[in-house]
Amino acid sequence: MNMNTANERVSPGALQQLAESVLAAHGLNADDARDTAAILVLADLFGLSTHGVSRLVSYTDRLRLGGINAQAQIQVQALAPALLRIDADNAVGPLVGHRAMTAAMQAAEQTGVALALVHGSNHFGPVAPYCHLAAQAGFASIMASNATLSITPWGGKQTRLGNNPIGFAVPNPGGHPVVLDMALSVAARAKIRNAAKAGVPIPEGWATDANGQPTTNAAEALKGFLLPVGGHKGYGLAIMVDLIAGLLSGASYLTKVSSWQDDPDKPQDLGHFFLVIDTRRLGSTEWLAERMRDFAQIIHDTPAADPASPVQLPGEREYARWEAQQAQGILIPTDLLVQLRALSASKA
Amino acid sequence: MNMNTANERVSPGALQQLAESVLAAHGLNADDARDTAAILVLADLFGLSTHGVSRLVSYTDRLRLGGINAQAQIQVQALAPALLRIDADNAVGPLVGHRAMTAAMQAAEQTGVALALVHGSNHFGPVAPYCHLAAQAGFASIMASNATLSITPWGGKQTRLGNNPIGFAVPNPGGHPVVLDMALSVAARAKIRNAAKAGVPIPEGWATDANGQPTTNAAEALKGFLLPVGGHKGYGLAIMVDLIAGLLSGASYLTKVSSWQDDPDKPQDLGHFFLVIDTRRLGSTEWLAERMRDFAQIIHDTPAADPASPVQLPGEREYARWEAQQAQGILIPTDLLVQLRALSASKA
Repeated sequence: MNMNTANERVSPGALQQLAESVLAAHGLNADDARDTAAILVLADLFGLSTHGVSRLVSYTDRLRLGGINAQAQIQVQALAPALLRIDADNAVGPLVGHRAMTAAMQAAEQTGVALALVHGSNHFGPVAPYCHLAAQAGFASIMASNATLSITPWGGKQTRLGNNPIGFAVPNPGGHPVVLDMALSVAARAKIRNAAKAGVPIPEGWATDANGQPTTNAAEALKGFLLPVGGHKGYGLAIMVDLIAGLLSGASYLTKVSSWQDDPDKPQDLGHFFLVIDTRRLGSTEWLAERMRDFAQIIHDTPAADPASPVQLPGEREYARWEAQQAQGILIPTDLLVQLRALSASKA
Repeated sequence: MNMNTANERVSPGALQQLAESVLAAHGLNADDARDTAAILVLADLFGLSTHGVSRLVSYTDRLRLGGINAQAQIQVQALAPALLRIDADNAVGPLVGHRAMTAAMQAAEQTGVALALVHGSNHFGPVAPYCHLAAQAGFASIMASNATLSITPWGGKQTRLGNNPIGFAVPNPGGHPVVLDMALSVAARAKIRNAAKAGVPIPEGWATDANGQPTTNAAEALKGFLLPVGGHKGYGLAIMVDLIAGLLSGASYLTKVSSWQDDPDKPQDLGHFFLVIDTRRLGSTEWLAERMRDFAQIIHDTPAADPASPVQLPGEREYARWEAQQAQGILIPTDLLVQLRALSASKA
C-alpha cells in the first residue's frame, strides 16, 4: 500500500477539531482558530481538497516564519453605512474572509446591501464556503479575491495577474443554494501543482511554459503561466476583480502581490471583496423558494446531450459531495492527517 | 456603389438629435427620448454599432405594436437604504437602464454602495454606456441583464438561457475608466445576425445548429444556440446573472423571458441589476488617479506576444474609437440614416 494515496474518512467535527488544534498550536486564539477551521472544513466537505485543510501546511509554515500574523487585530471601518474597509492586519486568510463576510452581512441587515473591501490579507481558500455561509443566512453574494501571479495579460508573455477567484451565490430556502466558485484560469494552479507532484501531464489548453508556448508538462507549466478562461473575456474579468478587490480596497495588486510560495515569510497584502444582498428584503421565504424551485426545474428539464449526464446548476456537484461526506465522513489522505497531527503538537 | 455598405460621418450631437426625434415621433416625452438616445449614441461612439442607434428600428417597431410602453411610468421603490426595486413598466430598455443607474447612484451618495434590481424591462443595449456614465460620476460598477434565449445550459441541447451581458467599470480620474462589457457567449448574437444578413460564414466555436452540432453557417447558427465563453464557467456566470437580474428582481428568467424578435408585440419582462460603489468614499481623487496610473502602467509594460499589438486594458479599444469618433463624427450606414429619418417623421 502506497501511503501517498491512502485515504481515511474523518467526521466533519473531528476534522474541525484537528484544524483548530493546529491553528491554536501556531498562536491563534480559540475564536480565530474556530472560524478559520470552519472555512477549510467546508472546502473539504465540498470536495475542494486543494483548498481545504491541506492548506494548513503552508499556512502554519508562514505563521512560523512570521509571514502571517497569528495575533492579528482585524479592523473594520465603516466608510459609509453600506461600505466597509477592512484592514486584515496580515491575519490568516480564511479568518479574514470569515470576519469580512460577517461584517458585510451585519451592515446589510440595516442597508439591504453592503460591500466589504479588504486589504492586508493572505490566501483565503476557495470562495464557495463564504458564499455558502452567507446564503444559509439569507444573503445572495458576489465575492472575490486577487491572488499570486499566474496569468499573463491577454496578448502578453509575462505573468502580471492572478487567476483571481470569484464566487456568486443565491440562497434557496427549499434546498441548497446555487453557488458558482471559479478561478479565472481554465484550470486552478493547485491542479497543475498536484499533477507536477504526481509526475503526470496536464490537458492541452491549461497553461504555457515560461516562454509562452503551450505545454502539457506540469512542471514546465508551473514555470510558465495559466491561460485565462475564455481568452480575452477571462482576462478582462481577472483585471476587474483585481481593480475592485485589490486596487479599490487599498491592497496590493498585479505584480505587487507577494507570493506565498516564493516569499512565505512576507505578508501578501492580498485584497478581497464581499458583496452581500439581503434577499429577505425582496420577498417572503415562500416567494424565493418557489422561484428557485421553478428556475431549477427549467434547467434540470433541459434535454441532455449525454442522457447519462443530466444538466446541473452551478454548485450541485459540490453539494452532492457535501451530503455524502457529511454522512460518511470526509476523505482525507492519511499522510496529510499524520502531518496535521504533528502540526497540532508543535509549538508556534 | 452599394448602398448597403456606404457610411456617413455624423456628429454625436446630430445623432443624438436624430435619435431623440425618432423616439419622440413614437410617443416618448422629451426627457425620456433624451436619456434613451444618450445611451444609444454612446454605444455608437464606442463602436458598438450592433447595439447603438441601429436598435431604434426594432424599438420603434415594438413601440408601434404596443410591445413597449412609450408612456411608461418607471417606479423606484427603496426596499432598504441601499437596495432599490424598480418596476420599469415595460419602458424602452435604455431609458430603464439610464433611470435605474441614476437611482442607484443617488442612493449610493448616502450609503456608499447601492444596488438597483429592475423588472419589467426590455433590451437595454450594451452595458458599457451605463458603466461609462457611472464612472464619470465617480462610481465603480457591476451591471448586468438577462436576455432573450440564445445559450443551452452546459451539457444540454436546448436554448434555455440568454447570453446575459455583464459589465464592470472602475473610474480613472487621470484618464478613461477601465470598462469591461461582455456577453457570456463566445460571440454576440448580433454578430451572427449580421453575418447571416451578409451571407458570410462565422468562425468555428461561436455556435451550433438546432441539433447542437457545431456550425460555421450563420443562418443555421441563428436557428441553433450560442456557445458560452469558457464552457461551463461561462454557463455558470450566465446562470448567476439571470438569478440576480431576473429571479431576485422579480422579472422573468430563463425560458420565461419573451423574445423581442419572435414576439415583438409582447413585453419582454427582462431584468437588470445596477450595483454602484462611490469611490470618493475610498480616498482622494489623487489617491485613485495615482493607483490607476500605476496599475495601467504595469499592464501596458507587459512584454507583448506580438510587438505590433501592445497589451491593453479592457475598454481601451472602445475609448480609442470614442475619441476618434468624437473628433471625426460617428460612422453610420447611410441606409440606416435614411431609415431613421423616415422613422423620425412617422407618427406613433
